[in-house]
Amino acid sequence: MPSAIHARMAATAEMIAAFGDDALVRAALRFERELAHAAADADVLPRADADAVAAACARCDVTGLAEAAAHAGTLAIPLVARLRALALAGGGERAAAAVHLGATSQDLADTALMLQVAAAGPLLDAELAALGRGLATLTRDHAATPALGRTLLQPALAVTFGSRSAHWLLGVDAARVRLRRELATGLRVQLGGAAGTLAALGAAGPRVRAALARRLGLAPSLPWHGRRDGVAGIGAALGIALGALGKLARDVALLMQAEVAEVAEPRVAGRGGSSAMPHKHNPTGCQVALSAAIRGPGLVASLLAGMPQELERGLGGWQAEAAVLAELFELAHGAARALVAVIEGLEVDAAAMAARLDAALPDDGSRAPALAAAAAVAGEALALHEATTAGLREGDHAVRDA
Amino acid sequence: MPSAIHARMAATAEMIAAFGDDALVRAALRFERELAHAAADADVLPRADADAVAAACARCDVTGLAEAAAHAGTLAIPLVARLRALALAGGGERAAAAVHLGATSQDLADTALMLQVAAAGPLLDAELAALGRGLATLTRDHAATPALGRTLLQPALAVTFGSRSAHWLLGVDAARVRLRRELATGLRVQLGGAAGTLAALGAAGPRVRAALARRLGLAPSLPWHGRRDGVAGIGAALGIALGALGKLARDVALLMQAEVAEVAEPRVAGRGGSSAMPHKHNPTGCQVALSAAIRGPGLVASLLAGMPQELERGLGGWQAEAAVLAELFELAHGAARALVAVIEGLEVDAAAMAARLDAALPDDGSRAPALAAAAAVAGEALALHEATTAGLREGDHAVRDA
Amino acid sequence: MPSAIHARMAATAEMIAAFGDDALVRAALRFERELAHAAADADVLPRADADAVAAACARCDVTGLAEAAAHAGTLAIPLVARLRALALAGGGERAAAAVHLGATSQDLADTALMLQVAAAGPLLDAELAALGRGLATLTRDHAATPALGRTLLQPALAVTFGSRSAHWLLGVDAARVRLRRELATGLRVQLGGAAGTLAALGAAGPRVRAALARRLGLAPSLPWHGRRDGVAGIGAALGIALGALGKLARDVALLMQAEVAEVAEPRVAGRGGSSAMPHKHNPTGCQVALSAAIRGPGLVASLLAGMPQELERGLGGWQAEAAVLAELFELAHGAARALVAVIEGLEVDAAAMAARLDAALPDDGSRAPALAAAAAVAGEALALHEATTAGLREGDHAVRDA
Amino acid sequence: MPSAIHARMAATAEMIAAFGDDALVRAALRFERELAHAAADADVLPRADADAVAAACARCDVTGLAEAAAHAGTLAIPLVARLRALALAGGGERAAAAVHLGATSQDLADTALMLQVAAAGPLLDAELAALGRGLATLTRDHAATPALGRTLLQPALAVTFGSRSAHWLLGVDAARVRLRRELATGLRVQLGGAAGTLAALGAAGPRVRAALARRLGLAPSLPWHGRRDGVAGIGAALGIALGALGKLARDVALLMQAEVAEVAEPRVAGRGGSSAMPHKHNPTGCQVALSAAIRGPGLVASLLAGMPQELERGLGGWQAEAAVLAELFELAHGAARALVAVIEGLEVDAAAMAARLDAALPDDGSRAPALAAAAAVAGEALALHEATTAGLREGDHAVRDA
Repeated sequence: MPSAIHARMAATAEMIAAFGDDALVRAALRFERELAHAAADADVLPRADADAVAAACARCDVTGLAEAAAHAGTLAIPLVARLRALALAGGGERAAAAVHLGATSQDLADTALMLQVAAAGPLLDAELAALGRGLATLTRDHAATPALGRTLLQPALAVTFGSRSAHWLLGVDAARVRLRRELATGLRVQLGGAAGTLAALGAAGPRVRAALARRLGLAPSLPWHGRRDGVAGIGAALGIALGALGKLARDVALLMQAEVAEVAEPRVAGRGGSSAMPHKHNPTGCQVALSAAIRGPGLVASLLAGMPQELERGLGGWQAEAAVLAELFELAHGAARALVAVIEGLEVDAAAMAARLDAALPDDGSRAPALAAAAAVAGEALALHEATTAGLREGDHAVRDA
Repeated sequence: MPSAIHARMAATAEMIAAFGDDALVRAALRFERELAHAAADADVLPRADADAVAAACARCDVTGLAEAAAHAGTLAIPLVARLRALALAGGGERAAAAVHLGATSQDLADTALMLQVAAAGPLLDAELAALGRGLATLTRDHAATPALGRTLLQPALAVTFGSRSAHWLLGVDAARVRLRRELATGLRVQLGGAAGTLAALGAAGPRVRAALARRLGLAPSLPWHGRRDGVAGIGAALGIALGALGKLARDVALLMQAEVAEVAEPRVAGRGGSSAMPHKHNPTGCQVALSAAIRGPGLVASLLAGMPQELERGLGGWQAEAAVLAELFELAHGAARALVAVIEGLEVDAAAMAARLDAALPDDGSRAPALAAAAAVAGEALALHEATTAGLREGDHAVRDA
Repeated sequence: MPSAIHARMAATAEMIAAFGDDALVRAALRFERELAHAAADADVLPRADADAVAAACARCDVTGLAEAAAHAGTLAIPLVARLRALALAGGGERAAAAVHLGATSQDLADTALMLQVAAAGPLLDAELAALGRGLATLTRDHAATPALGRTLLQPALAVTFGSRSAHWLLGVDAARVRLRRELATGLRVQLGGAAGTLAALGAAGPRVRAALARRLGLAPSLPWHGRRDGVAGIGAALGIALGALGKLARDVALLMQAEVAEVAEPRVAGRGGSSAMPHKHNPTGCQVALSAAIRGPGLVASLLAGMPQELERGLGGWQAEAAVLAELFELAHGAARALVAVIEGLEVDAAAMAARLDAALPDDGSRAPALAAAAAVAGEALALHEATTAGLREGDHAVRDA
Repeated sequence: MPSAIHARMAATAEMIAAFGDDALVRAALRFERELAHAAADADVLPRADADAVAAACARCDVTGLAEAAAHAGTLAIPLVARLRALALAGGGERAAAAVHLGATSQDLADTALMLQVAAAGPLLDAELAALGRGLATLTRDHAATPALGRTLLQPALAVTFGSRSAHWLLGVDAARVRLRRELATGLRVQLGGAAGTLAALGAAGPRVRAALARRLGLAPSLPWHGRRDGVAGIGAALGIALGALGKLARDVALLMQAEVAEVAEPRVAGRGGSSAMPHKHNPTGCQVALSAAIRGPGLVASLLAGMPQELERGLGGWQAEAAVLAELFELAHGAARALVAVIEGLEVDAAAMAARLDAALPDDGSRAPALAAAAAVAGEALALHEATTAGLREGDHAVRDA
């Protein structure tokens, strides 16, 4: 439980909450409640027993659960014990036996994680969408604003500021599409029981699993206790999103250097200051995103490293994922949020851009066609952005790139 | 240029060749030749000049190119200089000027890399497909073979060997689908010129780029000099494939322990031996795959770490990618090839499986339904495998998971 | 702020507290208080002003500090503002001006992190020492206990259980020594002011810094705002410690497989159970350590990735470190604690070891010398352990390895 | 075997050779030859048999060894077979039996790797030393040259160019010391035989091992087949060196931006050009170092990920190390070499530095003390550099940092 101070400098309160204890326990209880009802749907349980389980879930006291889970080695053990005791008190032995029916600890852990991710995904998607809107506006406004193109950190050729921001836009769109696509296939229900065969539910197993998926709004799936490509894919999409956000942040920070001064982060009272130099105006939004982008690759590596898990359900691999995936979502959301503010309020100094261009590349007649070509890039990118955004609205997870 | 000995222990000769110097230079020359022809297609160059460039490409001497590229900091500089000299000699100044028309070094570097990946992708896909076929056969043959399910490395419940191999199969299928999908969108032409706007080609730029894409069989794309999500996505797909292969290898190695002895890698003369213990039978195929799986996550992290590149074309980030992507393909192909041999020749000892099951979990009457549930998992996985494979044949990159 | 439930399954309450908000704020206030006194020591401030600063530190209300720091982009801004207000109220303008004298935000952030690490280091060292003691006892007790040596997961040669645990012991000792050594040089005071020159303190700067180091018990140092090798070195030592703990855990988990059953984690009520299979005895301690070992490499990569920081003080790099370093300490301490319990209570079945050995390698006369050689390894390792431990007591950070 | 073209752009020919096939085979044959002589030293073999083994080593034909090693899964199998055949032909059965006496494949692989590292270490150390000398000169020459300090990529305070380069110098010195220290303890002989006990050599085992270490110039050590902290420590030191080199490169590249133009990489004919913009002057040396620094963290993560190896000798973990360690050395040497050229020929524009400083921070009277404080930092860093360098000459691996 890293310090809230450090966490909040990197992440939003909403996303921290989405992976917090309350959300985790809520998701776990939702799994248990809907599992019982799914079993009733499939005629494995009387509905009354499912109701009794649901009542136990509603009354469950979660005090001390973190310590108990740490002792047991898994959240399910103490949670299920408490639910069974409540169900027993409320509905007798049959109700107690209906708790966690056919499931194993990892079913609860994985499905709860998926439910948290299902809530986190739209938060991040919305932030990336807002960033895309801001970047589209910027690109439209500055499609023809002359600027100095820089390659290998040296002056290259005339571009427009819109042709530059066009690439930020395409990068964010691509990240958003990839995340949507990975969530569409990766957000799966987990219900396999002790060895992934749902043996305890007999022939009804697949029906219970399908009903549970429906109730939870997750994709149906054979158990994936030992196949972690879905989680790894979501993690990789987050890592790639962090890379795209980091690219945008690095560019803005470079353009905000005093000697370049082509753009500036919006001035917000109390933000971007210095404890030693009161009048300093730091690129604090970029800092948040760059810091997150530095941490992304290692976290993705952690998810990949856990994939070669042992046999039916592994030892250590899947247990390493939840905290890592949470961190990736938190960093990505914090970075996106910070950059939305940066882009929406970005101060653009077209005169400075023109001055840098003139200083580095006096016009020898080649500038006009270069600017026209750059403006065309901005225009084409905006068209792709529209197409991609429209596609996403229809559930089409395709990047438009040409 | 790591030692060939170490390289060949981890990778196949074919994949090493796909990323070798010959293939790289061939791809670079193909880029230059087809760029000239694409310019001719778009009426930017007379066809005769394109032919002169092509003739220069055909005669280009590549001796000493590695040293020259190392000195220049990029392959394009010395290669283009040689081509220009040849074109000048063969076709005069106009032909020389037609070389590398409108392009920048990174256009050559990125497109050549994409052409190498375009050749490497099907090699790996074929190997994964062969592995899938082997695993499908194994799963079919052993759908009902009783075995001991193990979770957290402890006895859990009766499964069948086919329900275990079913997950290996689904993991490999998912890896194959993801790789295909990433290649379908990531294999893009790169042609942007000095600052990504193709300014030197004026209004004809987009037409030349489209023609080049068509000629090279790559997806058309706006320049992606600073947006590296395509490369990162391919790399992540390779990392996830390595994870799935590592999972299979870890399981086989565990099942091949002397005390378990449920399966064994095929005995191949001269393979899996020990220099100290002549009669030892080591899981050498699994070793290759596990070793590759250990290296995968860090390599993916390297690709992600390079994403926040500077402005129009970055300093250091994209230059780090080619060697890393090559390594990921080599490791994945080496691991897949090793496991094809393991799975196709796998010695399965059903009696040992039954004995381990009996020893750990004497039948209390619950075994028959457990085995039935396991066999159903195997059956369902085979159906999904058929659907996924059929989908891939039609260019549908969807994992079937339920 | 990842969920406390997930955090506690991986880490100890003590180590979580060492990097928690309370500890962070305490460390930050200690920095401010001792900085004022160090300035007084160096005759830059009247002692009365330092006392006024200290009084402000003692009364500082930290409510809402996380939100304020997130807004400002750094903890120092809101904290120093509160301290200045308190000092103004308590001691007037001169006292207010004495707060944070000559320092910059990063001075506070880095020194506070070092103070937290200075507290965390001994916690981890003590746990590794306890683990070493347990392993030494195990090695001594079983120096001559015959066992089957296994290489590449296949039977190899007769060893003793003590020759196996000897390597666990040497690995833990080496990790402990490396961590001590890195802490000895890496735990440095940070005081450089706005640009690392302590310009605001004039010629007195170095004396104030030296006094501050003395007061805080940290190594004196030129400012290291942009040189992060100390932090990276501590992080690498933690990553290597996690690797050594993971090795031990992997071995114990393999030996605890039902078919091997040579050792078992101690049975603790409520730990290692299964929510699906009540009588299961899972290697939960090993799970904690393996899970931590999976996450270590990526976290170390994150620290290394941040090293190429910009100019006098970078943007994003150092800001990424604190949470990552905290996580490494937490995972290492959680893993070490879990393994202390495993090793201290390890159930060793010498008869099973002998049986596995006989089954795999019937004695052909070579066993006795093999066992003697193994026992000698155990003995030599114990002697090295004694020497290393004695050396550590004298502040000598040398691994004894032969 | 990545392309020589890509390899040479990142690494020096010398370091590539140090880890090439010739060097590997030479090291392997040296191991076998000196092992035989060490056995003779310890009276385990007649010297004549050792001579026969040495003669076989001298005549060994290595054609096709890469393919044979790939088939066998280890280099030792085919190499030892060839040596035995030669020894049999040259010295009869006793000579053949003397080949690889008591050793296992991993003994050869690990010791050969250590011998390659023993050759690579001084190459890198020399390059870091040269870089240190260049940086010391730069720092001395510009200890008092006024410049603009920049923090978070914004103007901060007056510094001197020497106070900036002082940190580059200290970073390189620290990297050099750490590498020396890790090599001093990590460069160990590996000789443990089949299960790490040297059982085949009986009581003479430790004496043979000690003699072998002496003959090869490696540290004596108990076998470390499953304890990989030495390799991981060397790898981490290389990763930290890459971070320090990346920091220097990033700074130079930032200072070389056209709008800053305070320094420039030396102009070298044919280097740093652009295939699209003939007159461009790119920071090619910095590019090499930054590209290497991007790849370092993931490679270190790969080494750490392999640490939790199975039992006496693991499956996949140690086999993953050699290529990764080679790559780290190659990248570090290539980066250091590139930066030596950058620093030795660095064009420093003191007037530009003064102009940037004046533009950002007009002198309000605080500049003179700020410059004095900065010059003092430069001076102190130079003194520390002298002390560190002197210490290294005496084998003292301590960083002087205050």
